[in-house]
Order: sequence, then structure tokens, then C-alpha cells
Amino acid sequence: MSDEPYGIRDGEIAVELPERFDASLYFIGRIRTPWKRREDCPKNGRESDAVCTIDVDARWAAALTGVESCSHLVVLYWMDQARRDLVVQSPRHYNEPRGSFALRSPVRPNPIAMSMVKLIRVEDTKLTVTGLDCVDGTPLLDIKPYFASTDAAPEAVVGWHQDRKR
Amino acid sequence: MSDEPYGIRDGEIAVELPERFDASLYFIGRIRTPWKRREDCPKNGRESDAVCTIDVDARWAAALTGVESCSHLVVLYWMDQARRDLVVQSPRHYNEPRGSFALRSPVRPNPIAMSMVKLIRVEDTKLTVTGLDCVDGTPLLDIKPYFASTDAAPEAVVGWHQDRKR
Repeated sequence: MSDEPYGIRDGEIAVELPERFDASLYFIGRIRTPWKRREDCPKNGRESDAVCTIDVDARWAAALTGVESCSHLVVLYWMDQARRDLVVQSPRHYNEPRGSFALRSPVRPNPIAMSMVKLIRVEDTKLTVTGLDCVDGTPLLDIKPYFASTDAAPEAVVGWHQDRKR
Repeated sequence: MSDEPYGIRDGEIAVELPERFDASLYFIGRIRTPWKRREDCPKNGRESDAVCTIDVDARWAAALTGVESCSHLVVLYWMDQARRDLVVQSPRHYNEPRGSFALRSPVRPNPIAMSMVKLIRVEDTKLTVTGLDCVDGTPLLDIKPYFASTDAAPEAVVGWHQDRKR
């Protein structure tokens, strides 16, 4: 018999969530992608060269001043379909359970996704980019300039990923 | 006379914030650093080789399984002292106003900071790292494995920063 009282896979562990929240977010725009359902999305942004659009709400338009001079950006977005109580999980494409903080799965206490994207162009409040992996309509949280000096670690290694069987 | 009705510097622009929030966050731990005040913090994590501690709440301990195999991590944290309504701003160390999304300033609609850190060691729920820039006690939001394949862009350029006068 499988230990799946709430749709949890074997080996996965859920915790009780805290009683209250500590801070709140504004959705500042939406991300437009070719993928309508989670199961259509690429596993990560490098698996696809799909051109996507970041649609920033008019209220924040002036905050884009200078963004056009960036070759790459950090984009933060909200994975609103993800449960938040799993601390150990078995993503579909791996065969071993691992801690949520060792995975890039959307399932985590605060389902904020981070992608490094390549900026193609800026027109008014629309940014055309490559490197995203989320469903169409995903809420946008933040855009930051990507600085190679602080953000790039080409030598980085994720040991469990390198050693995995598949 | 300076145009600073609410402590805004010349050239800075504030907008009215949305009437309500769209999503909420849990603080999942605290970041321990040597800097007690904002003005003591390095401008970014690469300006300092200070060893800092990420103190994860016991509730999330199991989510750290596998993190010890990562050489680098992405850390998200909450800049709770930052105002959220500035869309154009003039940080102390630059002499020209720019859009919030072209800057790494903590002042932004959602004051989530992102740093790439080097992991030194994991002991229980304490991670020892270098590469952070925030004040002691900063609330932790998320920890992710850093994948060179998707997160590293050593060729990235921030045009306005490269061309700046100082």
C-alpha cells in the first residue's frame, strides 16, 4: 500500500505550515509563454529557446528605465499552483526523494521561481526574452539586472545531480 | 529647493502602491551577518569575503537533504526595511537616477533580494556561506541549488553600469 493520504508520493514528507504569513507580495505583471499547462513546460529555461514575453503592469513602467541596456536579467515569478508543505519530494524526472532546498521544483515553502533570461528587446512595458520555463499567465514578482561579476559561477557543481543514475 | 516631500531624492519617482496584496510569504529562517546597520553592508556580496550563517527554522530541516552536495546556492531574502513605491531611484553610490528594475537596490515593489553564495558547510540547520550583503537578522525566504548550466552567464553585460562615469 502506498503512503499517499494527500496525493504525496512514496518517500515524500509534508510538514504543518506556519499559522500565519510574515510578509506580502504584489503581482507586478504577467509572463506570456507558449505553455498552457504545467506538464507542457520545459524542465528548465535552457531546455527551450522559446521566445516569451514579460508583460509589466503600466503602474511600474518607469521602473524599466535602463533595463534595455542589460543583456541578461534575473526574473522572479510566483508559482501559484504549487503546494508549499513538502520538505522532501520526488519530482517526476528523478528517481530519488530529495530536500526541497536541493531542488528547483516549484514546490517549496515560498514558491518563488528564479530564472536567468536573455533580453531580446524592450517595447514600452513588454520585454521579449528567452530562458523561461513557466505556464502562460504566471504572475511576475521582480526583474533585476544580471551582473556577471556577482551572479555567474560557471564552476558551480550540484553534486547529487552530477552523480545521479538518470 | 529640493523636491523631497517624503524623503525622496532629486530625480526619484514614487508611485501609488496597489490597494491590496496578491500573495503571502513565510519567513523560513534568519541570515546572520557581521553588519548591524544598512550603511555598514557591502554594496554586493562580492565586495566582501565575510563568512555568514543561514539559520533555517527547525520546521524545514528535512528540506536541506542534499544541499550539502551543492558548491553554490541561490539565496532569496526579504529586505524588510526597504520602501516599495520608488520606480526611479538614485542610489547613494551612483550619480544618475535609474529604474528600480535596472538596479539591485533593495527598494522595489517586492523587496526580495537574490544572492549567489558559495557554500562552505552545512551543520544541522545552519549553512555557512560567503557572498551575502545584508544586515544581521534579515528574514530568509528560499534556498535553491545553483546550476551553472541555467544560472551562469559570464558574458552578461549591464550596459549602464559599464558606461557609467563612476
